Amino acid sequence: WSPADALPVCLTSPTVAILGSGDFSRSLALRLVASGVRVVVGSRCVNRIPSGLFPDAVELRNQEGAVSQAVCLVFMAVFPEHYCSLLGLQSALAGKVLVDVSNGAEMNIHGPSNAERLAELFPDSLVVKGFNTVSTWELQTGAHDGSRQVMICSNSTEGKKKVVQLARQMGFHPVDMGGLSAAREIEVAPLRLFPSWSGPVVVTFLLFLFFYGYGFLRGILLPFLAQGGHNAFYRLALDLVNESLPAVALVTLALVYFPGLFAAWLQLWRGTKYQRFPSWLDNWLQRRKQLGLLSFLCAALHGVYSLCLPLRRITLHSVSLKVPHKSSEPWDELGVWRSDLYLSCGVLGLGVLSLLAITSLPTVGNTLNWREFTFVQSGLGYIALTLSIMHTLFFGWDFAFHIEAYPFYMPPSYLLAVVVPCIVLVCRCFLLLPCIFTRLTRIRRGWESKLSQLCIDSKLRSIPQF
Amino acid sequence: WSPADALPVCLTSPTVAILGSGDFSRSLALRLVASGVRVVVGSRCVNRIPSGLFPDAVELRNQEGAVSQAVCLVFMAVFPEHYCSLLGLQSALAGKVLVDVSNGAEMNIHGPSNAERLAELFPDSLVVKGFNTVSTWELQTGAHDGSRQVMICSNSTEGKKKVVQLARQMGFHPVDMGGLSAAREIEVAPLRLFPSWSGPVVVTFLLFLFFYGYGFLRGILLPFLAQGGHNAFYRLALDLVNESLPAVALVTLALVYFPGLFAAWLQLWRGTKYQRFPSWLDNWLQRRKQLGLLSFLCAALHGVYSLCLPLRRITLHSVSLKVPHKSSEPWDELGVWRSDLYLSCGVLGLGVLSLLAITSLPTVGNTLNWREFTFVQSGLGYIALTLSIMHTLFFGWDFAFHIEAYPFYMPPSYLLAVVVPCIVLVCRCFLLLPCIFTRLTRIRRGWESKLSQLCIDSKLRSIPQF
Amino acid sequence: WSPADALPVCLTSPTVAILGSGDFSRSLALRLVASGVRVVVGSRCVNRIPSGLFPDAVELRNQEGAVSQAVCLVFMAVFPEHYCSLLGLQSALAGKVLVDVSNGAEMNIHGPSNAERLAELFPDSLVVKGFNTVSTWELQTGAHDGSRQVMICSNSTEGKKKVVQLARQMGFHPVDMGGLSAAREIEVAPLRLFPSWSGPVVVTFLLFLFFYGYGFLRGILLPFLAQGGHNAFYRLALDLVNESLPAVALVTLALVYFPGLFAAWLQLWRGTKYQRFPSWLDNWLQRRKQLGLLSFLCAALHGVYSLCLPLRRITLHSVSLKVPHKSSEPWDELGVWRSDLYLSCGVLGLGVLSLLAITSLPTVGNTLNWREFTFVQSGLGYIALTLSIMHTLFFGWDFAFHIEAYPFYMPPSYLLAVVVPCIVLVCRCFLLLPCIFTRLTRIRRGWESKLSQLCIDSKLRSIPQF
Repeated sequence: WSPADALPVCLTSPTVAILGSGDFSRSLALRLVASGVRVVVGSRCVNRIPSGLFPDAVELRNQEGAVSQAVCLVFMAVFPEHYCSLLGLQSALAGKVLVDVSNGAEMNIHGPSNAERLAELFPDSLVVKGFNTVSTWELQTGAHDGSRQVMICSNSTEGKKKVVQLARQMGFHPVDMGGLSAAREIEVAPLRLFPSWSGPVVVTFLLFLFFYGYGFLRGILLPFLAQGGHNAFYRLALDLVNESLPAVALVTLALVYFPGLFAAWLQLWRGTKYQRFPSWLDNWLQRRKQLGLLSFLCAALHGVYSLCLPLRRITLHSVSLKVPHKSSEPWDELGVWRSDLYLSCGVLGLGVLSLLAITSLPTVGNTLNWREFTFVQSGLGYIALTLSIMHTLFFGWDFAFHIEAYPFYMPPSYLLAVVVPCIVLVCRCFLLLPCIFTRLTRIRRGWESKLSQLCIDSKLRSIPQF
Repeated sequence: WSPADALPVCLTSPTVAILGSGDFSRSLALRLVASGVRVVVGSRCVNRIPSGLFPDAVELRNQEGAVSQAVCLVFMAVFPEHYCSLLGLQSALAGKVLVDVSNGAEMNIHGPSNAERLAELFPDSLVVKGFNTVSTWELQTGAHDGSRQVMICSNSTEGKKKVVQLARQMGFHPVDMGGLSAAREIEVAPLRLFPSWSGPVVVTFLLFLFFYGYGFLRGILLPFLAQGGHNAFYRLALDLVNESLPAVALVTLALVYFPGLFAAWLQLWRGTKYQRFPSWLDNWLQRRKQLGLLSFLCAALHGVYSLCLPLRRITLHSVSLKVPHKSSEPWDELGVWRSDLYLSCGVLGLGVLSLLAITSLPTVGNTLNWREFTFVQSGLGYIALTLSIMHTLFFGWDFAFHIEAYPFYMPPSYLLAVVVPCIVLVCRCFLLLPCIFTRLTRIRRGWESKLSQLCIDSKLRSIPQF
Repeated sequence: WSPADALPVCLTSPTVAILGSGDFSRSLALRLVASGVRVVVGSRCVNRIPSGLFPDAVELRNQEGAVSQAVCLVFMAVFPEHYCSLLGLQSALAGKVLVDVSNGAEMNIHGPSNAERLAELFPDSLVVKGFNTVSTWELQTGAHDGSRQVMICSNSTEGKKKVVQLARQMGFHPVDMGGLSAAREIEVAPLRLFPSWSGPVVVTFLLFLFFYGYGFLRGILLPFLAQGGHNAFYRLALDLVNESLPAVALVTLALVYFPGLFAAWLQLWRGTKYQRFPSWLDNWLQRRKQLGLLSFLCAALHGVYSLCLPLRRITLHSVSLKVPHKSSEPWDELGVWRSDLYLSCGVLGLGVLSLLAITSLPTVGNTLNWREFTFVQSGLGYIALTLSIMHTLFFGWDFAFHIEAYPFYMPPSYLLAVVVPCIVLVCRCFLLLPCIFTRLTRIRRGWESKLSQLCIDSKLRSIPQF
């Protein structure tokens, strides 16, 4: 890439030292050797390292020896609590780049980061934070991560430059995060637990709690209190869960498509696409994939539970208890149509959702061009939503018009669940009206209404520093 | 890589300009900055760009300022209908490389491509087509796409060379598509909707129509007409679909293995592997993965529907209506064996098909060596085919020998569906005969029969220019 | 990368020759051309190559012409049995690097490798083994394999260096395997059939055989012999399989977590983490993913079979035969709770296992940081194990305390299957005790007990060369 004369001398004959002989040190050494870098590992007691742990090309020395061999780069692969034990190397490390690869011990909100403490201990060295987000497994295999991001920060531009070059040589994709004060955030990054999932999971869980609680009140607790002895608590384990899951799945699926409609409406109203969305809408738009997968999960569980329930009825003979005294009923053809239609819609809807879930796998999604992606995510998504609504409506059939469906004046939960999806579907159809569709397309291609330009210009004039 | 003196001056201090400030411009700027390139973005009204939209390292200028800063490369990230509005920059852009990143608006079959129109407007610039197949998401993340292809074409070798180098620096895998006349095809590429799927989907759909229509005629319409009142139209929604799906799945699976057999037979007959297959066979061979996945889809749907049907019978009590008057039948052990065997074969066949579907995921398939791949795709594939045929035959049992199975002289659809798979299986066993197998292996390792050499030599002599 | 002056002259104007015109030759040529390398293909009979088979940038010559054009690198893309036919080129190839890309014909344990035979035939050339593990498909697409490993070995350092550079230029990740004697292993690598799967598959299969045989003895053969006529052999096809599968799944899942506990215990006992584990434990630890996936497979099959069984009962009316004379039983609410709870635990356990299986896909796993990975693989894994055990215990309910559950003094198989998982779970809880947990954490962060240091020091002193 960069021409030869731009390369610092230390990288043309790059001997890099690693202090410490743990798992990370070993994996780092493997990767460095595979990238054509000479590596010397420094350990407190070299004799204790099992033979064969490091590749043959790696030289094992004591810590002083390793540091003296390093031309300019030294990786600190020891636990941060042992940094003080290296104070004796202070003069040997002076002027060299120290790469701090440690993770935070726990979510460190106050107090200095490991890298900052290291910089205090070795004021004459150039401390660079980096590589802590890379796992030992990724270092060893180097497969499928050709452009894996490595976050780097330092107060020393010179040191950062060298580490960036080395990271590129190792096949990583270095990302400059700024000064050493950013180290805390980088150190904490590997401790975060699915940050993009927490919101959607909480929403889904709250929806489940609501529908479960509502169903419990309406179907079990109130009838029990009203009629005394009629005990239906056995429905808690399976029946009620299977009643709540589809409602949650349906509402969550609607929540996937709601922010897109809202964004379209905002663009129409503002008459331009050059104004940023409010941050809550931005966040919501970025969580659609997670919401969709959670909706799929609930729908799949609902499918499995629905298949399990007849299993129970058969094995428990409870069916045979109830069936006989109904056997005088005539053949209910309308009932067959209803059940067949709601089963078909349900199965097909779940099938389409599965396709959506498969295309959300990174490698599958990567092979699609944007038109295919739009077709799958938006086209198939609305088909799934429509099928799910039809599944619910066919299930409900005409029971919603009977007074018995409203015990204690509470509508059945599927009626509650179908409200938001129906609104989403109607709004979507509204956006497809020719006049609105044309205007929206024009806005998305960069056109702006005169009004919006005026608004913004006057805003700019009144707040010139904005 | 290439030595320093081969690098054009403009890339050793590469300031690249991007005209336009939309989503694509922003993502392109992010990626360029991450690749170590200095970027200046030119916009009609710089004040209107929200702060924070572009990374700090990016300089924002008006269009003239941006172009004047660019050493040699300018990206045109504006909609092609606005190209004319840039005519004022004609002299500033002279001698520079203009990269056209636009997509076609619709399937453009006649008329010049956007890149050709751009070349007409700026005759003194070197217009290069490229990067339009890359999505903004891929530009931003840069993950998992280390060698993502970027198709590039231009009439200027010099311009193409510079763009190729930049694309490599950004971590893409540039592919030279030739002169600017290839731009139309490149522009249309992102508009194509699953080009490799259309054929297999049409075939599967036609098969489904055939089996559904046949089943409708045989099981519903003709009996209705013949017996008057007997109305079985309720079977349309679920029963008949579930009768057609397995037939479609079976035939489609056979179609996956048919072209391979045909190719083997062609090689045996010609006595050489150095003659190309006819193009229809080539196309068919390239669509086997899609056919296999569609077969899996149908089989999976059939499995789910088969599990749903008893659910309906229980909830609708229709079982209890029919069962009683048969309850005097003795315990039918043969029937138990039959049903257990066809269920086992079906479940195992679907399981093997699932494994095949999983290995068709890019990342899973990538980890296999060719022997493992052959084992899975060919070995497991034929096992799945055999299990499916057995599933069908066990389902059919001995009913095919009864006259009642042929109302209106029409055989049941599973009998029709099993014909092609059986032929495929027999042909495959035929190819495993030692004498044929040895000859085929020799041909595939490069051996040629004397006869085929004579044929070809005489052909070559008679048509020397071929 | 390396500075310009380190590049050999032959790569600055790199014309590379490929001998042979088969599939591999074609794919190799495509990739080389796409990487900016000039390619000339040498074939015995150039006229026989169909037009369009090779890209236009590739020059087609006879073998002598191709070799003479190659500056220093010649790929041997012919079958190894035809190497002798190239002896005439011996002098033309002298001093050039010959890259042997052939695979072994069969598992070659004795005898020289293809590369060694080639080196004997061309003693004046520098023979390098490599690229045989790359498939033609990977060469052509070049997608998703940015850092795909290419194993290379040679006795010539100079030759190896050139091939390593070319491999990097082509987007591969070359791995130096040492001298030419390593060629045999490299040639055999593509012939290996799922080496990491053989152990786990054998274990799972033996477990299945054991439980199937045990169930056959206990439930079918012994009752048949004891009671004479009572024939339950029809249970072989489905019932017994479905009884054995969950037992296998449960034990296999326990085997996934067993070695981790053993390793922890070993570290606690030794008081250090710097001693290597015995190799059988190392192997076991590396096979956990495969064991887990096999456990998931068995559990999923068990789920499907369990859903299929009521299907059979309904279609065969055997239910209606048995049910009536039990219809006088009272409503068994305890039974409903039991069945609902074991169904719930089973479904949820299988759901959690599915999540685990999905995260074992390479691309999904790559997006997790180590804390998320630990949470999924260890946290969710133990949840799945607990749910599976609860599923089994709820299924068993109180029947284990009845004498009828022990015909012929043989306990039911689910009792046998639940033993190992319970041990694993108890051990795991034991490791979570505060005193043990703290000590283990300290050991894993590098702390060592005095005792262990003494032990090792004395060992080191007594066996100084170790």
